[in-house]
Amino acid sequence: MTMRRVAVVGIGETTFGKHADRSITDIGAEACINAIRDAGVEHKRIEVATGAFAAQWNGPRGQYFALPHILLREIGVTKIPIHRVECGCATGATAFRDIWYRIASGEYNIGLAFGVEQMNVADSSSILGLISDHNPEREPDLGLTGPGIYAMMARRLMAQYGVTREQIAKVVVKNRRFGSKNPVAQFREPVSVEEVLSARMVSDPLTLFMCCGRGDGSAAVVLMDEDTARRFTSRPVFVAANVLTSGAYDDAIDFVSFDADIRAGQQAYAMAGLGPEDLDIAEVHDSFAPGELVHYEDLGFCDRGEGARFLEDGSSDVGGKIVVNTSGGLLSKGHVIGATGLSQINEIVKQLRGSAGERQIEGARVGLTHNSGGYIHNEFCAAAVNILHN
Amino acid sequence: MTMRRVAVVGIGETTFGKHADRSITDIGAEACINAIRDAGVEHKRIEVATGAFAAQWNGPRGQYFALPHILLREIGVTKIPIHRVECGCATGATAFRDIWYRIASGEYNIGLAFGVEQMNVADSSSILGLISDHNPEREPDLGLTGPGIYAMMARRLMAQYGVTREQIAKVVVKNRRFGSKNPVAQFREPVSVEEVLSARMVSDPLTLFMCCGRGDGSAAVVLMDEDTARRFTSRPVFVAANVLTSGAYDDAIDFVSFDADIRAGQQAYAMAGLGPEDLDIAEVHDSFAPGELVHYEDLGFCDRGEGARFLEDGSSDVGGKIVVNTSGGLLSKGHVIGATGLSQINEIVKQLRGSAGERQIEGARVGLTHNSGGYIHNEFCAAAVNILHN
Repeated sequence: MTMRRVAVVGIGETTFGKHADRSITDIGAEACINAIRDAGVEHKRIEVATGAFAAQWNGPRGQYFALPHILLREIGVTKIPIHRVECGCATGATAFRDIWYRIASGEYNIGLAFGVEQMNVADSSSILGLISDHNPEREPDLGLTGPGIYAMMARRLMAQYGVTREQIAKVVVKNRRFGSKNPVAQFREPVSVEEVLSARMVSDPLTLFMCCGRGDGSAAVVLMDEDTARRFTSRPVFVAANVLTSGAYDDAIDFVSFDADIRAGQQAYAMAGLGPEDLDIAEVHDSFAPGELVHYEDLGFCDRGEGARFLEDGSSDVGGKIVVNTSGGLLSKGHVIGATGLSQINEIVKQLRGSAGERQIEGARVGLTHNSGGYIHNEFCAAAVNILHN
Repeated sequence: MTMRRVAVVGIGETTFGKHADRSITDIGAEACINAIRDAGVEHKRIEVATGAFAAQWNGPRGQYFALPHILLREIGVTKIPIHRVECGCATGATAFRDIWYRIASGEYNIGLAFGVEQMNVADSSSILGLISDHNPEREPDLGLTGPGIYAMMARRLMAQYGVTREQIAKVVVKNRRFGSKNPVAQFREPVSVEEVLSARMVSDPLTLFMCCGRGDGSAAVVLMDEDTARRFTSRPVFVAANVLTSGAYDDAIDFVSFDADIRAGQQAYAMAGLGPEDLDIAEVHDSFAPGELVHYEDLGFCDRGEGARFLEDGSSDVGGKIVVNTSGGLLSKGHVIGATGLSQINEIVKQLRGSAGERQIEGARVGLTHNSGGYIHNEFCAAAVNILHN
């Protein structure tokens, strides 16, 4: 089939953090309104919308049913196809993919993808733990929580490739430095290697700062086909590749690579006709600090086992080959599950527009987003990769 | 864009009812396996899958995250794009639409849509009541529960068109008669008008039998593009139209018509190049008995105000113009939210294949499904209509 070029024309976000005194519809509406205004489009012209909302964090009060309809009704977006998607921690990217595909395929010309979550009102760890019938997190004595699993990854990186605690801490130092310059980020204090290493131990060797927080917040984007986009903006950001895939039951997992991420990256590069060498910037799923090092490798930014070196020699920092997580990443913003994938798109678009303020990477023209969901063992794993360019 | 013809090649269901001793993944896997076997396709050939799962009925234990991935892993369907959709009571039809579109547009050739729910383990009414921030159901004194709203519809039908309680009861009599012949139906006892009218009053004038039950269960379909379908089956059932839309915030609602349903029907007829006069059978969303009469009108089966006459003169029964809810409808099967829309597809396919057993409508060649979600006041409303033919 012939796919049309699709552009991101509007972006919008709330701050990530605590919005305990607001309704979830209010939080989500703010990002949607911001994206619609940024696109300069009349809200009645939106032809299709998809909402990303992962789970019910706040007890019975959070058992929203058809939340996207209710939220969009508040801002007058009605009479169009609307539904909700969920795909674990890759939920935000899944909404982006849905709208991208509807436009790329020619069904619609103008669409809205948004994600929203209100996670600070519950023990979200216990909900994240309910990820499956067979989830080790349901056996609390086993300790296989998210931090526990990533701690095993860190241990394996240390044993197999000689990665050090200091190197893992440097992921946090870099991302928090970027986050300190991002007004939407939740944790905006820069930290030193010493501060990261001396923070409270969560799951040895991971300290508190090596684990992302959760948060309340929302992010949205307005997408259009190329012809329509050019009538609304002189600075469209195009989607060169969009891939969603999932992990394999029968693959051996070695805890230092994600099968689904590798395939998603390869498929995205093939679709874009670009390679990692063409990327200027990337937002990768740094839910836990050692994950970022593994993502460098899985996404082909460097060779296997070279992730820590790629970080330490500055390749993923300002002036390096691919500047990673200029938004501050999940480690600074907090992981607002339905919004995270769309917040990554927001950041890349800001960078490619040259409007990223103090954290602007000069001359950035090609960026990648990587949003992953699920566990790194055999339970399940979803991976979404986008490549954007201006 | 050019859309390819898409065929339903495999169907599968569980019984609807109580599956309290099974896991939700086990229930869903049964329908998926049945559909895959019915299609005669190797499970590894499925290229994309979408799961419909509306809400968390059973407390924290029901807070499944990425349920479709976990469920499909159990049956070896991995490494492909998988996600979950939700769209209120139209959730099942939304999954069908998602896979239909992926194949119609040419992205994939073989896809699986499934829906599953385990609703008997909680007070699902209270969850259904949490449908929005502003939902009147959150003000229990107001009484605007689902039955309360449909009771208002019944009252309005009685006042405006002279519809009688007996006529409303006859919807139940017809559907339970069909349901008595459907092995998957939950409530399989035929009932008389007298029994319906003398049943416990739920919301005057609606008695218990005029309100659908809830249930545990699952339904699934395997879809393929026409060329692929012809390699797997000599009896493909084609999708002539597939529409999803939503209701309008700013429309006046008169409680005896659904704006979104009217538009969905009109769009579907235009897409199929067919009209209501071409239909032999239909599955419509009879969550409450008066709704079926209104759907006749909204979907153009008869003129406005003629719904009760259409029923009473036998137009929607065996030998009539459009035989409605041969499966027994939601009134017999129970409303298993994520599965309902896909169960409707199952029934139409069985009828068009000539394999509906005792309830077979001879010569059925064109069928419609109508799955609606949300409330009939201004909160929100989603409507999905499919037209299938052989």
